[in-house]
Amino acid sequence: MKPMTFELTILGTSSALPTKEHYPTAHVLNVHERLFLIDCGEGAQIQMLHAGLSIGRLDAVFISHLHGDHVFGLFGLLSTMSMMKRQKELPIYAPAQLEDVLRDHLRHFGADMAFQPVVHPVDTGTPALIYTNLGMTVYSIPLKHRVPATGFLFREKPPWRNVCKQLVATHQLTVSDIRHLKNGNDVTLPDGQVLLCDKATYLSYMPRSYAYCSDTMFSETVIEQVRGVDLLYHETTFLSDKSEVAQRTMHSTAADAATVACRAGVKRLLIGHFSSRYGNKESFLQEALPVFPHTQIAEELQRIEI
Amino acid sequence: MKPMTFELTILGTSSALPTKEHYPTAHVLNVHERLFLIDCGEGAQIQMLHAGLSIGRLDAVFISHLHGDHVFGLFGLLSTMSMMKRQKELPIYAPAQLEDVLRDHLRHFGADMAFQPVVHPVDTGTPALIYTNLGMTVYSIPLKHRVPATGFLFREKPPWRNVCKQLVATHQLTVSDIRHLKNGNDVTLPDGQVLLCDKATYLSYMPRSYAYCSDTMFSETVIEQVRGVDLLYHETTFLSDKSEVAQRTMHSTAADAATVACRAGVKRLLIGHFSSRYGNKESFLQEALPVFPHTQIAEELQRIEI
Repeated sequence: MKPMTFELTILGTSSALPTKEHYPTAHVLNVHERLFLIDCGEGAQIQMLHAGLSIGRLDAVFISHLHGDHVFGLFGLLSTMSMMKRQKELPIYAPAQLEDVLRDHLRHFGADMAFQPVVHPVDTGTPALIYTNLGMTVYSIPLKHRVPATGFLFREKPPWRNVCKQLVATHQLTVSDIRHLKNGNDVTLPDGQVLLCDKATYLSYMPRSYAYCSDTMFSETVIEQVRGVDLLYHETTFLSDKSEVAQRTMHSTAADAATVACRAGVKRLLIGHFSSRYGNKESFLQEALPVFPHTQIAEELQRIEI
Repeated sequence: MKPMTFELTILGTSSALPTKEHYPTAHVLNVHERLFLIDCGEGAQIQMLHAGLSIGRLDAVFISHLHGDHVFGLFGLLSTMSMMKRQKELPIYAPAQLEDVLRDHLRHFGADMAFQPVVHPVDTGTPALIYTNLGMTVYSIPLKHRVPATGFLFREKPPWRNVCKQLVATHQLTVSDIRHLKNGNDVTLPDGQVLLCDKATYLSYMPRSYAYCSDTMFSETVIEQVRGVDLLYHETTFLSDKSEVAQRTMHSTAADAATVACRAGVKRLLIGHFSSRYGNKESFLQEALPVFPHTQIAEELQRIEI
């Protein structure tokens, strides 16, 4: 069975100052053909058009923190959704401050809104399950930044289990037996023998995971929480030449991000949120690779199958 | 003498819904190498980068009305200016409502602002002189839209006058005489004869003018105010097939804009703010041209010498 879609699209890779080529931060995660927007820098809606991602298909928005380069695109996006006649409530998972921001925004610009954006405040101090649907769960990841900030850990739910074909024949399993096993239950056969679900079935593919950590300085808590994920996005605003600035502004260097990836044993590391002072993104890769070889650079409109 | 710069750059031509190719409304007017931003839809700062226009050189911002597609780019722009260490106050001429919007915005996002943006409220009911500097004056133009809205009329001040060379020789004019004449004064010669400034001097070039009218429905008041300008930008959200929608939403058709241009005797008409429902901008031109032949279509990143 071909795994269902679990795909990331990068909309912007710059830090606070956009450049001609680089938009501020925004990612879209496609989980089983449902779209989730993660942060929403200015121009995110225009980048979604370029990426061929339908704004109408957004199920929820996740905002990491209330700095402009992660949220100023939200206002235009909400306006566009309203003009596209969205009626369904839009849940937005974000630090509690977004409630005030959005209340003020809607007082000024929300007169004709066709739908309701609803903020679900995320506690930025304690990891928690914040969202679940049929295919996925999302946990918050406390980050260390100048303002309350949260990362997000997207975990696909395990797919349906397949029953080993040989057992079906050997034990002449009924449709009901098979359904029970697929649902994760053990089955007692007519001869009293118990077929353990774990032995009799297998996952058609391994459930996948994506962790998003921006903005943050190096954090031991993050390492614990992102352990073993398939893809970790970690901000790298600076190179180590600016590690003092990174400390002061509570950002990470490429080496910091690679260290997190290495110690957490993640499969792949994706880096972004590059300061515009560095002309060349390759230098971020050069700094990260010796620490963690499975590192790649985020690029605008890049799609990454997870 | 070569005229000093008086040049318009178009940053966005779409109406409320941006498309892959079209950004929401924003124009930059360069008057004698000072830059003025007129409306600021989402992505205006990114388009300024593409146009090679320095954000640091902006002298003032003019906002026509408080609909998102004309103002949502302001938040990112202010943030960028602050990060670029602007210190000089930024005057923003806009309907009074922007004061509330900006106050709320700065409460949420203005903690580290390096400079002060200052709103100068524009009375949207009565034309008035709202700005003046060494080279230009700006007048407000009351518009007819669903919310308080103002257009802007930018008028270059007359350049220095040149004294007719022949007169200098004939009357053996002194340096002081010439300075008097250049400053617009008459001069009495030793023989009692009076040299009238109007006769003895000429303008090195005619002062230029640009009128910006968006968003608005057809308005007789606008016609009176933009009479004879060198370039009129007038919104054309719709074609005449949607004239009922245009009326209801208080927008203009291409025919409306062309009629304003024709009756006001302007030199050139520039149309924009196209609804995304029309795939082809040429149809706007086809509707306008029979009414006013000197019509052209606004295009992203187009530069127009006025």
